[in-house]
Amino acid sequence: MQVTLLSHTKDIESLIAAAARTCYSPKTTEEIHEMMSLENNKEENLKFIQRLRDMGHESPLEHVSFTFGIDGVSRSLTHQLVRHRVASYSQQSQRYVTGDKFNFVTPHTIQEKTNLQLAYSKFLMQSMEMYEALVANGIPKEDARYVLPNATTSNIVVTMNVRELLHFFSVRCCTRAQWEIRELAWKMLDICKQVSPTLFNGCGAFCDQHKYCKEGNMSCGKYPTLADVLVKEETPNV
Amino acid sequence: MQVTLLSHTKDIESLIAAAARTCYSPKTTEEIHEMMSLENNKEENLKFIQRLRDMGHESPLEHVSFTFGIDGVSRSLTHQLVRHRVASYSQQSQRYVTGDKFNFVTPHTIQEKTNLQLAYSKFLMQSMEMYEALVANGIPKEDARYVLPNATTSNIVVTMNVRELLHFFSVRCCTRAQWEIRELAWKMLDICKQVSPTLFNGCGAFCDQHKYCKEGNMSCGKYPTLADVLVKEETPNV
Amino acid sequence: MQVTLLSHTKDIESLIAAAARTCYSPKTTEEIHEMMSLENNKEENLKFIQRLRDMGHESPLEHVSFTFGIDGVSRSLTHQLVRHRVASYSQQSQRYVTGDKFNFVTPHTIQEKTNLQLAYSKFLMQSMEMYEALVANGIPKEDARYVLPNATTSNIVVTMNVRELLHFFSVRCCTRAQWEIRELAWKMLDICKQVSPTLFNGCGAFCDQHKYCKEGNMSCGKYPTLADVLVKEETPNV
Amino acid sequence: MQVTLLSHTKDIESLIAAAARTCYSPKTTEEIHEMMSLENNKEENLKFIQRLRDMGHESPLEHVSFTFGIDGVSRSLTHQLVRHRVASYSQQSQRYVTGDKFNFVTPHTIQEKTNLQLAYSKFLMQSMEMYEALVANGIPKEDARYVLPNATTSNIVVTMNVRELLHFFSVRCCTRAQWEIRELAWKMLDICKQVSPTLFNGCGAFCDQHKYCKEGNMSCGKYPTLADVLVKEETPNV
Repeated sequence: MQVTLLSHTKDIESLIAAAARTCYSPKTTEEIHEMMSLENNKEENLKFIQRLRDMGHESPLEHVSFTFGIDGVSRSLTHQLVRHRVASYSQQSQRYVTGDKFNFVTPHTIQEKTNLQLAYSKFLMQSMEMYEALVANGIPKEDARYVLPNATTSNIVVTMNVRELLHFFSVRCCTRAQWEIRELAWKMLDICKQVSPTLFNGCGAFCDQHKYCKEGNMSCGKYPTLADVLVKEETPNV
Repeated sequence: MQVTLLSHTKDIESLIAAAARTCYSPKTTEEIHEMMSLENNKEENLKFIQRLRDMGHESPLEHVSFTFGIDGVSRSLTHQLVRHRVASYSQQSQRYVTGDKFNFVTPHTIQEKTNLQLAYSKFLMQSMEMYEALVANGIPKEDARYVLPNATTSNIVVTMNVRELLHFFSVRCCTRAQWEIRELAWKMLDICKQVSPTLFNGCGAFCDQHKYCKEGNMSCGKYPTLADVLVKEETPNV
Repeated sequence: MQVTLLSHTKDIESLIAAAARTCYSPKTTEEIHEMMSLENNKEENLKFIQRLRDMGHESPLEHVSFTFGIDGVSRSLTHQLVRHRVASYSQQSQRYVTGDKFNFVTPHTIQEKTNLQLAYSKFLMQSMEMYEALVANGIPKEDARYVLPNATTSNIVVTMNVRELLHFFSVRCCTRAQWEIRELAWKMLDICKQVSPTLFNGCGAFCDQHKYCKEGNMSCGKYPTLADVLVKEETPNV
Repeated sequence: MQVTLLSHTKDIESLIAAAARTCYSPKTTEEIHEMMSLENNKEENLKFIQRLRDMGHESPLEHVSFTFGIDGVSRSLTHQLVRHRVASYSQQSQRYVTGDKFNFVTPHTIQEKTNLQLAYSKFLMQSMEMYEALVANGIPKEDARYVLPNATTSNIVVTMNVRELLHFFSVRCCTRAQWEIRELAWKMLDICKQVSPTLFNGCGAFCDQHKYCKEGNMSCGKYPTLADVLVKEETPNV
């Protein structure tokens, strides 16, 4: 799996800060944006954005998007990934791209057992040969691909805005997500943190953001569940 | 492939007519809805909805949704299907459901050639055996499934509103769509037409709705392309 | 303000239960739906849905939608309402509907002070007269309406699925929401509870659903904030 | 009205070209993006994007977004604007920002008639005074604003991706759109064309993009309607 940041919105922090301040200010968006872009406002912008995130005022985060190129991931992963509907995708098509250029993903659990790993590799070779035999016999690529396994790699370009990224990280950095998409989520988060360390400070799985777990009896136990925390506080103050 | 209508919004035509008339009427939505629900307004409602669709005033169509149960389709199909983002999905999970309950889809192009069909079936059996061997050796289902081919069947519940359905039909009933999702689209359309013949009258591929093709040099030729039609009309009236 | 349930998806609970079980079952969607529709499964369905909601597994809730007719609300309210983007709207148009059919909303804070109430009513009459004078002098309705105040009433048809409704209630039933849209949210919730008491059991403001407040230093104090609750638990278990 | 481009995605054309080519290429997204970013590929990229748009293959256009600051527009306009749901908004709030900082929009039809213009201005002054009297008497801003007219100006930050922008232009540059939002749409289009002349070449109202009108009997007559064009071609080729 290889994850590359292909592009992102310019002037990330000053744009988010300007959008958020527009809600509460009599000044024009242009005046506010100029102010927010001044070098000596940088630190304050970052503190302000941190406060926004803490308060759950997330809509200004939508104005900034990141575009990633994701290469060499399984079709199992991309099928999960594209279920996130507030995002844009351009994926390598098995209807148009020939299968002999594909590679395969091997799960760690299989890699660790040599005999299974060998059987697994051999089977993948067979699937490739089966695919090629079908194409050689005049079957269209779009039908021959029915023999290609989930392990077959795909490439995909993904654009998400920061609000959606935070949500994506909250569910896919969690230990309950499958290992492959979790690996992707953490790689995307690492890249985001390099671009804007403050904006993505404290991001990750839901529990890392909120300091409690909402997975109930499926919890990995890293953080207490909300039920555990609230048990002492059950009665409302009023 | 089996497609079942699981549910839909009640009082389809009177609801759409009431929503559309709300835009242009001083009456309350309750008064309008009561009027629209009268038996003797049925025919007029249907004509009115037809006019809405002709004028491209499609937003009132969003108030009505259809929910389909789709069984026994390939994972290739579901991967295409869930790319339609204005819809809701609940899909059988390969992480939780054991693989020996799966079946396989065979494309017509393969079915037609006996020797390929035999090799194809044999390969699918091997993939099933490989999957079971992995599970028997302690590999989690979510990893064992990496050997499952695209042909593996899946079940999925889909809800789309009528506006999105019209769009879905326009792209997926087209001959350029892959045969399997095209078959699904036509089955869904047949069901919709049984529920509301007038609402879905004339629906189908883009060309069947608009009487011209927009696929350019990929056109199947059933209808002329817009370029062909417009060539005589190129200069604006004014 | 008058809120009317115009329509909703048929067989609410059995549909949601069937969609959710599809994810974990080798059975077809049709078989599952038939089972879920049996009378003697009703109680179990409701418990199952309750568990789904507790675990935050909310996507099956999207398959069911409710359509409301909302009459006699201010344009301030509708401007806030249509910011909820995962919903469908058909609103009475000030470009097409003549203004002398409009009424006005009076906030409680103004109603309570007789002298202000009188001045307010008088001003609204003036705005109506100004509107009518403009139209009488040949100004198109779409321009004459520039003098109409936010208090002018509007009618709107709204469709939301249950997942979005739960979100809508969580932010708009909160005391921090403006009184008018809060009144609307509670009326919609009352109606939903009449249709499906179990499905909407415990719904309301975020705090009523989650037993803590996330409004930070803007909290009304009914429930403790998460920070207050977590202060004793700050260190992760692991 | 003042429209400012606050930000946009970096490397517009090479990003769109790379996303689109990913669908059809065995190369990795990283390799494709590097190729697309080469200076001597610029011209070819632009031709390629033009072809994409002609074929209606619009999804790669979603990877690029533009963020505009819009100042001094009426609340009528913003109420129309936020109905476009595939976009992100941060709007100046009448609940938090004090009304004496607001200005008013005057429609051209009123400006042209001196006596109406005077009455209109006087009325707007009265509404402002009424607002201030309410606030001075302890009415919260969120309630005092019920007297503010649609003409009251607002500032708003808007982000749309290129696919949504093309749709926005197609409906809002049309002569059937209200003059104020049409003025906004044309200003946004001018700015887009300055940033990427080729990407936005030929954009505008639906008719300017498609060379026919779909407004039926509401058509302004600039282009023939589709019915007019198709009348000679009614029978399908096959």
